Amino acid sequence: MTSEDVLAVFKEAGALLEGHFILSSGRRSSVFLQKALVFSRPDLSEKLCKALAARLAADFGKIDVVAGPAVGGIIPGYELARHLGARAIFAERVDGQLQFRRGFSIAAGERVLIAEDIVTTGLSFRETVEALAKLPGEVVGGACIIDRSGGRADVGCKLISLAQVNFPDYAPDDLPPELQKIEAIKPGSRGLA
Amino acid sequence: MTSEDVLAVFKEAGALLEGHFILSSGRRSSVFLQKALVFSRPDLSEKLCKALAARLAADFGKIDVVAGPAVGGIIPGYELARHLGARAIFAERVDGQLQFRRGFSIAAGERVLIAEDIVTTGLSFRETVEALAKLPGEVVGGACIIDRSGGRADVGCKLISLAQVNFPDYAPDDLPPELQKIEAIKPGSRGLA
Repeated sequence: MTSEDVLAVFKEAGALLEGHFILSSGRRSSVFLQKALVFSRPDLSEKLCKALAARLAADFGKIDVVAGPAVGGIIPGYELARHLGARAIFAERVDGQLQFRRGFSIAAGERVLIAEDIVTTGLSFRETVEALAKLPGEVVGGACIIDRSGGRADVGCKLISLAQVNFPDYAPDDLPPELQKIEAIKPGSRGLA
Repeated sequence: MTSEDVLAVFKEAGALLEGHFILSSGRRSSVFLQKALVFSRPDLSEKLCKALAARLAADFGKIDVVAGPAVGGIIPGYELARHLGARAIFAERVDGQLQFRRGFSIAAGERVLIAEDIVTTGLSFRETVEALAKLPGEVVGGACIIDRSGGRADVGCKLISLAQVNFPDYAPDDLPPELQKIEAIKPGSRGLA
């Protein structure tokens, strides 16, 4: 599966939005990946996660637990675990910090993969590494469907992505002319009604 | 699949806890179903959701969208949608109210099933019905893996469950003697570290 194939799946799900968007990092971009629309489609999620799972064995070997940050990492983590024969757990933000709750546990010696849908700055990935550092088990690496940083993000472990894309993003006070003409919106927070 | 079979799956996942527990409704019980442990296992989730999906066709016909309340309803809703050939969306609490965000949409005429892992009082189910009332589409019914109310909960639509169980729950000031002897804990909030 090529990066173009992955973006074609996002387009099929109506998840490749073009305009002027405020990313969760606060930076701006002309492209927004409304990933939840892809992962609301089990057929498309299977396609992507199966392909990603196939790439991981060579680098990471056996995986016992797939761990990801809620909410975005829940379904990709689950679908990836389904193809790896592993368990899937997720960390939630409690008083600003990612924490594993709900009785989730990792036994000593278990091999843990961190998974996320999209990596942009790698922040929530690094926070998940920190949350896992308090638990038994060994983080063997990380995986994501799309790496928006084109491989530059420091995620705190080796990262394998299904697609690397280079949609430029900008500081709010350093926008290119074409973006300055379009009103910026924060798609993630837009309710339906 | 009988109710005993469903509870056996919960036991296999280590999700059937016995002691003195504070339920999310505030009521108390000697049994706590740590459902997240079941849905961290794709193999067990598939077993339960496939069986539930098979029960729904006769009553609800074709389903286009499975909608559930985050976070607990995300994986069961997704796995159920996978077996129904439907999309899966979830509502999140924003300022105390359940809302569909992340670009989730429902088209006029689409048939919507509400899904949750466990129903106790039916509150989050009714809140999901309210959130859906603002959107196009038709709620054709509801489904859950375990109905802890034994069929008594008012969920705001017809509910089909894979298992009905009758673990008694009590008001905090009206506990049976055996519970009074054991310190009450709130399992959902227990962190790992």
